[in-house]
Amino acid sequence: MAGNSFGTSFRFTTWGESHGPAIGCVVDGVPPRLALAEGDIQHWLDRRKPGQSRFTTQRREPDQVKILSGVFGGETTGSPISLLIENEDARSKDYAAIKDQFRPGHADYTYWKKYGIRDYRGGGRASARETASRVAAGAIARKILGDAVAIRGALVQIGPHAIERARWDWAAVEDNPFWCPDRVMAQSWEGYLDEVRKAGSSAGAVIEVVASGVPVGLGEPIYGKLDADLAGAMMSINAVKGVEIGAGFAAASLSGEDNADEMRMQDGTVHFLSNHAGGILGGIATGQDIVLRFAVKPTSSILTPRRAVDINGNDIEVSTKGRHDPCVGIRAVPVGEAMMAVVLADHLLRHRAQCG
Amino acid sequence: MAGNSFGTSFRFTTWGESHGPAIGCVVDGVPPRLALAEGDIQHWLDRRKPGQSRFTTQRREPDQVKILSGVFGGETTGSPISLLIENEDARSKDYAAIKDQFRPGHADYTYWKKYGIRDYRGGGRASARETASRVAAGAIARKILGDAVAIRGALVQIGPHAIERARWDWAAVEDNPFWCPDRVMAQSWEGYLDEVRKAGSSAGAVIEVVASGVPVGLGEPIYGKLDADLAGAMMSINAVKGVEIGAGFAAASLSGEDNADEMRMQDGTVHFLSNHAGGILGGIATGQDIVLRFAVKPTSSILTPRRAVDINGNDIEVSTKGRHDPCVGIRAVPVGEAMMAVVLADHLLRHRAQCG
Amino acid sequence: MAGNSFGTSFRFTTWGESHGPAIGCVVDGVPPRLALAEGDIQHWLDRRKPGQSRFTTQRREPDQVKILSGVFGGETTGSPISLLIENEDARSKDYAAIKDQFRPGHADYTYWKKYGIRDYRGGGRASARETASRVAAGAIARKILGDAVAIRGALVQIGPHAIERARWDWAAVEDNPFWCPDRVMAQSWEGYLDEVRKAGSSAGAVIEVVASGVPVGLGEPIYGKLDADLAGAMMSINAVKGVEIGAGFAAASLSGEDNADEMRMQDGTVHFLSNHAGGILGGIATGQDIVLRFAVKPTSSILTPRRAVDINGNDIEVSTKGRHDPCVGIRAVPVGEAMMAVVLADHLLRHRAQCG
Amino acid sequence: MAGNSFGTSFRFTTWGESHGPAIGCVVDGVPPRLALAEGDIQHWLDRRKPGQSRFTTQRREPDQVKILSGVFGGETTGSPISLLIENEDARSKDYAAIKDQFRPGHADYTYWKKYGIRDYRGGGRASARETASRVAAGAIARKILGDAVAIRGALVQIGPHAIERARWDWAAVEDNPFWCPDRVMAQSWEGYLDEVRKAGSSAGAVIEVVASGVPVGLGEPIYGKLDADLAGAMMSINAVKGVEIGAGFAAASLSGEDNADEMRMQDGTVHFLSNHAGGILGGIATGQDIVLRFAVKPTSSILTPRRAVDINGNDIEVSTKGRHDPCVGIRAVPVGEAMMAVVLADHLLRHRAQCG
Repeated sequence: MAGNSFGTSFRFTTWGESHGPAIGCVVDGVPPRLALAEGDIQHWLDRRKPGQSRFTTQRREPDQVKILSGVFGGETTGSPISLLIENEDARSKDYAAIKDQFRPGHADYTYWKKYGIRDYRGGGRASARETASRVAAGAIARKILGDAVAIRGALVQIGPHAIERARWDWAAVEDNPFWCPDRVMAQSWEGYLDEVRKAGSSAGAVIEVVASGVPVGLGEPIYGKLDADLAGAMMSINAVKGVEIGAGFAAASLSGEDNADEMRMQDGTVHFLSNHAGGILGGIATGQDIVLRFAVKPTSSILTPRRAVDINGNDIEVSTKGRHDPCVGIRAVPVGEAMMAVVLADHLLRHRAQCG
Repeated sequence: MAGNSFGTSFRFTTWGESHGPAIGCVVDGVPPRLALAEGDIQHWLDRRKPGQSRFTTQRREPDQVKILSGVFGGETTGSPISLLIENEDARSKDYAAIKDQFRPGHADYTYWKKYGIRDYRGGGRASARETASRVAAGAIARKILGDAVAIRGALVQIGPHAIERARWDWAAVEDNPFWCPDRVMAQSWEGYLDEVRKAGSSAGAVIEVVASGVPVGLGEPIYGKLDADLAGAMMSINAVKGVEIGAGFAAASLSGEDNADEMRMQDGTVHFLSNHAGGILGGIATGQDIVLRFAVKPTSSILTPRRAVDINGNDIEVSTKGRHDPCVGIRAVPVGEAMMAVVLADHLLRHRAQCG
Repeated sequence: MAGNSFGTSFRFTTWGESHGPAIGCVVDGVPPRLALAEGDIQHWLDRRKPGQSRFTTQRREPDQVKILSGVFGGETTGSPISLLIENEDARSKDYAAIKDQFRPGHADYTYWKKYGIRDYRGGGRASARETASRVAAGAIARKILGDAVAIRGALVQIGPHAIERARWDWAAVEDNPFWCPDRVMAQSWEGYLDEVRKAGSSAGAVIEVVASGVPVGLGEPIYGKLDADLAGAMMSINAVKGVEIGAGFAAASLSGEDNADEMRMQDGTVHFLSNHAGGILGGIATGQDIVLRFAVKPTSSILTPRRAVDINGNDIEVSTKGRHDPCVGIRAVPVGEAMMAVVLADHLLRHRAQCG
Repeated sequence: MAGNSFGTSFRFTTWGESHGPAIGCVVDGVPPRLALAEGDIQHWLDRRKPGQSRFTTQRREPDQVKILSGVFGGETTGSPISLLIENEDARSKDYAAIKDQFRPGHADYTYWKKYGIRDYRGGGRASARETASRVAAGAIARKILGDAVAIRGALVQIGPHAIERARWDWAAVEDNPFWCPDRVMAQSWEGYLDEVRKAGSSAGAVIEVVASGVPVGLGEPIYGKLDADLAGAMMSINAVKGVEIGAGFAAASLSGEDNADEMRMQDGTVHFLSNHAGGILGGIATGQDIVLRFAVKPTSSILTPRRAVDINGNDIEVSTKGRHDPCVGIRAVPVGEAMMAVVLADHLLRHRAQCG
């Protein structure tokens, strides 16, 4: 079926493979008369761009976005916005060796069994390169949400090393190559990741995304719940294995009293005394910060040889020598932010449809 | 917008409030000529039914399902199947007191802010009673999947007390009121939950759902990923705050070598030596068991008074005296199984559409 | 696939067979706080009800609608509205004879070939009885549109006998059993249809539906065009074979000059000097009346024997003796109005989503 | 909302304006391992291409399609196929004059009122140029349908001049600039259209599209009826004002006996003795030819001045001097074929989903 679209009222469709001529997306349902230029999208793409530190893949992609439609005189027209990003530094020859191999942790085996054909170059459609399109769509979603809504992401754990929450400083996030809000931990991660890289290994990570200023009332009950849509959105990002909202898995250990987010009137509005709910009750935003975390598994492409099989049914060993992120979780931060943005923008429009 | 439907090729729409005359669902896209009788659905509804032990709500609902359409001569016809379950033991008077209150942890406040109107009786549409419709739809989904696919759920944690995985015994699950696969822990939970109940408190839980026999190839890349759909499906269940697949959040702490599910040929087919992936790679089933867990927060309705506000902007205290589950996670087990079933059935049909 | 739902933001799903226990629908996406009672829906159902003159089927169905959910204290809550209509006068025995027959003009053969199973009683799911659910959903759609939008239908042709447009009088429509706006023609149809009925034959019809007060701007370009959605909606009604908007097929014979709807400013607003467009340009409402017509084929169930085959591959003759409408087009009038209402209500919400 | 996508299992999304850098589409849900090259798509685009005779617009567009994704080694991979067609001969300056005008019959006024912004260059998004994307998607749909299904279109009426059906010859369709199956009428149309053009006028048309070899059983009852989807598809083409299936509007004048398509067994299969139904009963294909017609209004851009208004509320006169088709219906023939193809391909996959 047609599974390359996301959203309902705000809806985008992505296309393209890692080593094809280009990737891109079509963003539909965008309200008219929003100011939009390529620079507005480029700003966010640049944050996801590979090769910005020694901790991400050395593939050099300018990731230059072109707007092909839907914008006229610097404003959106309400027509679909087509975005195109050319692939430039695709070294397909690097991949000839793995043409017939099913690499552990990759989608090689499952694509092959599903489709009976596989674009093996750089992971083809399954490559994390697709997430550039998400970030581009997310940039447009942020325009819809406006300045009142702020979406920020941070890396809160690499491998077994979690940050100290007492040291959380949003300003720190822009100061280190990890989007880490804990300056002390950021330092320590540098050494840790260098070792991981030298050992031909890789590390997982946990990302936290926070949306502030979300209007109370966004979200739909039952199957269109804001948290359900967010969970699906985050889990659809490459390598993600878990998603939690607010207190998340820790909520299972809390008592009903401790988990309750009590309320008090303050200056004429409802004020919550805590946020175990992560800003969502019954699938609908409470107006508090929406807080979620997702876990990214360690990069599957590693130098250390692993046992595998090939398409001819031979037992083999696989060791990946291409250019890879030692921790894909780092570049997942802007992607997580983007997915938060697209879900919220969609729900903003959906809410408007039903409730005016 | 219209948020009360789930699925694409296999699609169901639920309706009904906790204290209205009835609840129900319409299940569409069902393949023709499947044997289906009310008893097939009742079997699964009876597992979710309240009042079966002292650890679940004492509301007595027979939850008797009627098939109103889509079945002829004991077989599905391909037309939509309408299912109806009457509400019988609804004590709406119990709720007059909370008519104007926003109970902490409930959707009272958010529904009110979204819609400007609220059916306060028993939580109205936000009540977990809606999950009976999910279980009914899940029963039909199991018919589509056939006997080769087995879906089983278990409770693996209540409050801070997790089971011992070495003691896992699927047979134990049917022997205790908790769906607990660890007989020793089940004993210990009895005492723990009795105390929680007497203290006017409540406890959270973690549920694990496993699907065996899922054909390799089910699932769609990118935004229709099997794990993305499962994450959304589980997060849409009342009170769920986190979802993880396979190694889940623990994957973040693993090295790339340890997380890799190595492969070897065995009797002519691909055999995985571990299952950190939880049976899904690139959004597509590998043929291994699909394994997921989700966390349920402690029941929000508790006797212990909590600070809250009412619709008139007054600070109040709320203490809930109605009939409630001390741990809603228990009855979430059959609901989690049902959501697994509906996602898999949908993907079975979707796969067939594209890949024949 | 799941084909029993209609609409996107305003969306309803119908279910039920002609001779099952009941039929009904679930209407989702309805804005909250609209006044709605069963009587509001019953009013429109009564217009479609069979057995009101000798020109429609003598099946006696009270078509009493029950609201099972989504309304609280006389107002919509934003939750799905479940409507149920019990089948009372189903004489299934009448249909035992046709159990194995493929009646010409009916869906017997195609359902059998598609599904391999068929509820033959009264046409099963393919019966025009399903249109009662459309009328019920249409009643809710009218509530969304409000009083400023008026939707009216009329029968403009029975068999070869078309009305005289110069004699059009909307008041006449309620005065005769045909919804005919031409009192002279209505008289003449009585005699004509009596003859058709006595001859064991049947007649086709053309229906015109007009919506006034539709705000300029409703509709979506390209694949969500208002006229495209209306064409699909009308063609989905049983026995419809053609749909046209504005000048329709006659537009093919007009010159560009004659077809142009010229404009002039009048009292500060744009005024069109004609309406060949039928109120829609580029898929978007102009603010003029939306005018469409659809053609209904003659009732397929006739006394006159026709050649056919049965499920065992035998040549047979079919002559239908049950209770049937000599002209199904008559009861299609309220159904056409309802489909106009649901398309407009959906587009009202869709427009609001994108354009605020 | 998001209205630029068509289809469900087979689904495409188009984008692009008449005078932007390019137009294109993303085609999703395509089965894997279909042979597909740019030439396969170009073949059909060339038939729609403007400037091939003096009876179509003189805009010179090579309409060269590029495949940017979803094809690997000459075969589809199951991933979305992105198609791009550059705009080359866009003379935007021609349109500066109409920047502030609402041209009669065009979408200028309605886009302006809906969106408050308008890309006036060449009609922007509302231009018939968008139909090139439909033809491209249709080429892929034909690959899915395979050689057993043949889809052919023909022009059966220009202005008031309809063909003589007794002279129908499919071979003639490729011999004249009108896709006319009646060689005599084709001759006569040349003179007629030359006069229309010289008079600064334009003419409407009627197109017939026939699909042979469609398997019995395609189509979904109720709201996914094959004829409902076809009606919506055809009505979504620019300038279309009416659609009919089989006997169409003429069915209204037939008696039940005459309209019945009688059946007889022949060589072991069901044989219909006529095809008033146009190959569809109850929304499902009978296996007979699917036959539909649609009416196209005369080109709205004409030399003859017409009264109109501008965005500043002034009464004006509009006379269009650009390069235009005297009869847009001609180039609608390949577009109608394409829309038939995409609807059938979608239903082929949808049928497979539910019925295997």
